[in-house]
This record gives sequence, structure tokens and C-alpha cells, in this order.
Amino acid sequence: MKKSTRITSLTKGGSDGWEVFYRARQMIKSGTPVIELTIGEHDIRTHGDILNAMQISAEKGHTGYAAVPGTDALRNTIAKRIQKRTGVPTTTNNIVITPGGQSALFSAHLAVLDPGDVALYCDPYYATYPGTLRSAGAKGKVVICYSENNFQPQLSELSLAANGATSLLINSPNNPTGVVYNQTTLENIANVCTTNDLWLISDEVYDTQVWEGTHISPRSLPGMKDRTLTIGSMSKSHAMTGSRIGWICGPEDIISSIIDLSTHTTYGVPEFIQYAANFALNQGDKLEIEVSAPFARRRKIAIELLEQQSVVRAVPCSGAMYMMLNIRATGLSGQEFASALLAAKNIAVMPGESFGTAAAGHIRVAMTVSDSHFRQAFRVLLNFASVQVVTK
Amino acid sequence: MKKSTRITSLTKGGSDGWEVFYRARQMIKSGTPVIELTIGEHDIRTHGDILNAMQISAEKGHTGYAAVPGTDALRNTIAKRIQKRTGVPTTTNNIVITPGGQSALFSAHLAVLDPGDVALYCDPYYATYPGTLRSAGAKGKVVICYSENNFQPQLSELSLAANGATSLLINSPNNPTGVVYNQTTLENIANVCTTNDLWLISDEVYDTQVWEGTHISPRSLPGMKDRTLTIGSMSKSHAMTGSRIGWICGPEDIISSIIDLSTHTTYGVPEFIQYAANFALNQGDKLEIEVSAPFARRRKIAIELLEQQSVVRAVPCSGAMYMMLNIRATGLSGQEFASALLAAKNIAVMPGESFGTAAAGHIRVAMTVSDSHFRQAFRVLLNFASVQVVTK
Repeated sequence: MKKSTRITSLTKGGSDGWEVFYRARQMIKSGTPVIELTIGEHDIRTHGDILNAMQISAEKGHTGYAAVPGTDALRNTIAKRIQKRTGVPTTTNNIVITPGGQSALFSAHLAVLDPGDVALYCDPYYATYPGTLRSAGAKGKVVICYSENNFQPQLSELSLAANGATSLLINSPNNPTGVVYNQTTLENIANVCTTNDLWLISDEVYDTQVWEGTHISPRSLPGMKDRTLTIGSMSKSHAMTGSRIGWICGPEDIISSIIDLSTHTTYGVPEFIQYAANFALNQGDKLEIEVSAPFARRRKIAIELLEQQSVVRAVPCSGAMYMMLNIRATGLSGQEFASALLAAKNIAVMPGESFGTAAAGHIRVAMTVSDSHFRQAFRVLLNFASVQVVTK
Repeated sequence: MKKSTRITSLTKGGSDGWEVFYRARQMIKSGTPVIELTIGEHDIRTHGDILNAMQISAEKGHTGYAAVPGTDALRNTIAKRIQKRTGVPTTTNNIVITPGGQSALFSAHLAVLDPGDVALYCDPYYATYPGTLRSAGAKGKVVICYSENNFQPQLSELSLAANGATSLLINSPNNPTGVVYNQTTLENIANVCTTNDLWLISDEVYDTQVWEGTHISPRSLPGMKDRTLTIGSMSKSHAMTGSRIGWICGPEDIISSIIDLSTHTTYGVPEFIQYAANFALNQGDKLEIEVSAPFARRRKIAIELLEQQSVVRAVPCSGAMYMMLNIRATGLSGQEFASALLAAKNIAVMPGESFGTAAAGHIRVAMTVSDSHFRQAFRVLLNFASVQVVTK
């Protein structure tokens, strides 16, 4: 039986750089201890108070169909939060709740792209981005962001790619690079979007994890409010990855259409999870700082250890729960390095090549194990790199 | 800013027959009591034991990313359940868990349809069907099912529509008609699918609500296993509408592709909800019978009252939580009848016209209020119908 072209072309086949990740999981399954510095999963669980809130809502009987756009309470809390942080007037009608950030990304692209339209995204990219565009039937086109520019997209590359495109997807603070886009970068992005009449899809799920500089939401820049769809999620900010709850913020008209779309794609999000999310957001900054603090600490540990050697160079990690490390001095590719490190030291990291072409010769380290394990693993990793240089 | 054609053509605009529903909700909001016999929402909540199971799983720390295909435990339980009920060998690899039946419907269509492909569905139809096909970029084409044939699709209509089509979507037990497709109908459907090389998407979410005859899953018919995607859900069988959990069962190869798709559209379903669903399924028939029993009782009440009059004729209601009533003898359209009934008696039902063209002159009654309220409302409804005949 014939499958749709959409579904057969989702993934390109061949190596996608995730072999190391799967090998690590296989080793763990077989009983070999592995320190996993691979994916963006907190080493803490969702806070018990949030789970209690969920249970209270469920026990009160909120177990029937929820309103498809999301509950008024949660949409309102998110609207107020965004307005407070960005200064952009935002109401309930600018918000639709989705079952997670990935669903928000997918719906946003479905809403602005027709089959065959050109959708831009930055390389290095989060693993699902190319497939998300393809799911919408769009043609993905990359904007290469060079390590030499600390992976900030440049005006020249953006302008070149924008001609004939329909949308641009960005992510700051960035996964996989740990970079926070600066004011100049975001102004360039805004200019390119307004000049070329592009939709901007701004994935801001790491907006509570900023270690240096400030997170600027591009929706707040001149001319951007009516052409920006902001993607948000409770996953990273509140360690609620498994609750699958996120949102899109954008112009009322298209949000209303996306709600129509939700009727046909998901039919809403469990009300008890929405209640829990609203409870979590209403705890304010305190809980968010508590959830992000471990990454801030581990980043300092990494910087301290990096300063004691000169083989591995870090891309300045200004946000998110990852460090991107340049290991080109070892003469190994990211894939070779990650593969050898796992085999020799039982430490799993992601090869830069898993995230496109621009991060070749890099590895991504997720700061997602306890401080002491992180310090130990990071030290072993740096020693391993220096040995490669000596022995090559 | 331009929106995608997909999203602007989702709903056709104009009247969709849901005005009565929205007017009823508005009346309730304004403090006017209305008996709602409109949508398929149980008058009970999700069982407390199921909610406890969810909480236990969450408290045990299952709050991180779940495996995208679903947990092995839940997939295995569903596979075994399907094999037991249908006799078709079914394993974990035939199952993907989705955030609800609607998401399963959407993913199944995305998996088999390219933009422009012709997708068949039966009229009368469940409200989201046409938009679901359009979301996938397909051209919907109806197979009209006539009231005179008790809304069973006929071989002639099926054969005529099938030429050049890619897929056929059916739903038995049927919403909105309450009809269970008989052996002949399903054999005709299977013949048309194999002759025309169609995918069959079989929405079986009401499979635990069968009052007369037997539910036959068409995947069990000769030649159908490799071309059928069965849609299942916990919503109707276990009163878990708000938990948003369902599944697709189909050939391993396409299920594997749909799992790839899930990575890009939803990134899985909360593990604690999957645990709760598995717990619920493991309660076996007892719980399912408990959940479906009220509809069986109310159906009997309706039949008893219908026999005492001759104006309203019922389409034989052999399954699901609805009755489709032919009110053509009143001289009113379904919309006129429903609108007048709401205005005069504060009882809300769905006009048949909400579900396409074939159920014009009908109303759909959801049996979703307590037995005593149902009896009272149904009696008022029948009296109202007879008065229309007298006064016309």
C-alpha cells in the first residue's frame, strides 16, 4: 500500500548522528552504567505541588472535554506573563494551548505554509525542525550559522535565504548551541522578515534559562507583532516535559484559525494538565529559578574546567541547558569523538553533526546530571580530548 | 499576512448547523437551565481509581518524556485486546499511542494521503471528518448513506465513489446515527477497498457500545489487514474524554512511519496518562459495561416512549450513545425543529443537518443526561413533535 510522500520523506534516512544516543541507551539496558549528557531532560522530576494541583483538578471532575483553545484561566495567565516580559499588549485571544511545544511548532508551520512553500530554519538546528517543516509539506532551506560567529545568524546569510521564502524559524536561547541571540541578531532577523514579508516562528521554550545577556522576544521589535508566532512550553521552564503542554502566541486572526486546526488535529489538551500548568505559572519566578539553577551551576563548573586546558573550546554558553564544544583540535569529527568517548569512558554526548552541518567538529553536552557527576564526566571528557591531541 | 490555504479552507464558513448548540451554551451561561442532549460527553466523570492510577504514576516520577510510540505496556495491552476481539494477530508494533482519537484520525489521514488525493467519508458524518481530510490537504468526497437504508452505506454508492480515491473513512458503531454496520455492509466495504486499492480508516471508538447485533472490525475481513488503520480511544469506552488518549492499529510498516510523524507533531503522550489508560483497560469488561450501561438503559426508555406515538420515527439505534430521529412528519427541517424545541422547551438537540446532507429532517439526541431527565426530556420532545403536526 502506498504511503503519503509527506510521511515517507519525513526523515532523510541514512545516518542522522543519533547512533551514539541509541548505543548509550542500549548499553544502559544491558546493565552498563553510562553518564548521559545527551538530551534535554532535567535530572529532577515535575514538582510534587504541580502534580497535586493536577490531581485536585482531576478529582474535582475536570475530566471531560476541555475547551479546544485552552482554558480561559491558563490562556489569560500566559497572556499576562508574555505582556509583562515583552511589553507587547497580549490577551487571551492571542493564545492557543497545545499538547506540548512540538505540537505548537507543527501547528504554527501548518498555519502559514502551503505545500511547496519555502520555510527557513537555522543550522545547527533542533533535531525535529527539518521534519516538522516537511510534515507541513514545505521545502526547508537552511540559514547556516557559523561557529566563528558564535552561531548567531548573520544578516548576509539571512538576506540571501529570505528571497522567495514564506517563513523563518528561530530558537533563542538556542538548542543545540546554548547561544542567546543578541540585539543586533534579532534586529537583523526583524528587518529581513519585514523586508521579505516573512512569518517569524520564534521558539522561545528556553526563555527562563538565560545565563548572560537578556532574552529578547522578537515579537517586541518594530513591525514584528503581526508576523510573529511565538512558541512556548512548560517543559524546560518547569520540568514538565512529560506533561506535554505548550502554546502559540500570535495575532488574533491566525490564532483563531489555529484553534480551528486544533479541533481537527488534537481536540484540545487535558483540563487537569492545564490546571497544573496554570498553578505552576502562578508560582512565579521562584519556581522557575529553582528549576533552572542546576544548569547555571553546572555551566560554571564547565567554564572553570575549560579554563584549565586549551584543546576544547566552548562556544559561549549564554542560555539553555547545553554547551556546544568545539573539539576540532582533536582532529576528530563530532561523531568520531562522541563514539570514541562512549566506548572508552561510558560518557554519552551528542555529535554536532546530529544538528546539521554547521556544528561539525563539535559536541553538544547536556548539563543534565548531578553537579558531582557532571564535574567528573566533564573532567574525563576534557582529558580524553587532550589525549587525542597527544596521540594523533 | 497570508495564512495557508489548508488552514483557511478548514471550515467552509456559513451555517454549519451548530448554532443551536452554541445558543444552548449561551443560555446556560446566562442562567437559563437547558437539558443538553447534544454532544457525546458522558454524564459521569472518569472513575476515581483511574485517576488514582494516574497520580501514582506521576508521583513515582514518570513525568519526563515518554517513548514517542507509547509505553510498551500500553501498546501491548491494546494489541492483546484487539487480537482477542478480532482474531487478527496483533503485536506492539502494530500500535501507536496518540493524544486522543481525533489525533489518531488526523495522523492516519496524513499518513496515507498526499495533497489533492481523494478521501472518501460517509454522510452523515462526525463533525470533524471533513476538516480532518482538508487538514491533510486531501479532497473529501462523500458516500451518501440514506435514512431509508438505515444509514448503512450501499455497494452502489461505495463503488461509484471509490473510482480514483485513495482512502475511505468509516465509523461503526456510528456517530451521529447510532447505527452498527452489519456483515453485508462491511463485506461490501472490504470488497470496494480491495478492488480499488483503498486504505480503510476505521473509526471504532464506540466499539464497547453495541446494543443490537455484533461489532465487526473490518480489519478482520479477508484482504483487509494490510490496508486498514483502526482508530481507537479511551474517551467513550472509559469516560476518559478529557484525558486525550487514543491509538492507531495498522500494518507495522506504516505504524513505524506514523511514529516518525508523531515525533514531529506531538512528541508522545504523557506517561502518567498512558499508565492510567493501561490500568483502565486491565479492569476488563466490567468497567466498560459499567460505563456503557446508562446508554443501554436510556435507549430502552426512548424506544418505549417512541412506541406510544407515530410522528417521530427512530432510525434503529443499535450502538453508540446517540439516537437519530426522523422528524420529517412535522414538516420542519432538523434545524427548525431543534431551534424551536430549544426556544419553547429549553431542550437542546443537534439538527441532522449538522452532520451533512443525508440526515436532513432528522435530529440527533445524545443520551447523556440522567435516566429521569432523559425520560422527561424525551417525552417533551415527542409531545412537541406531535403538536407541530397538529398545528401545521
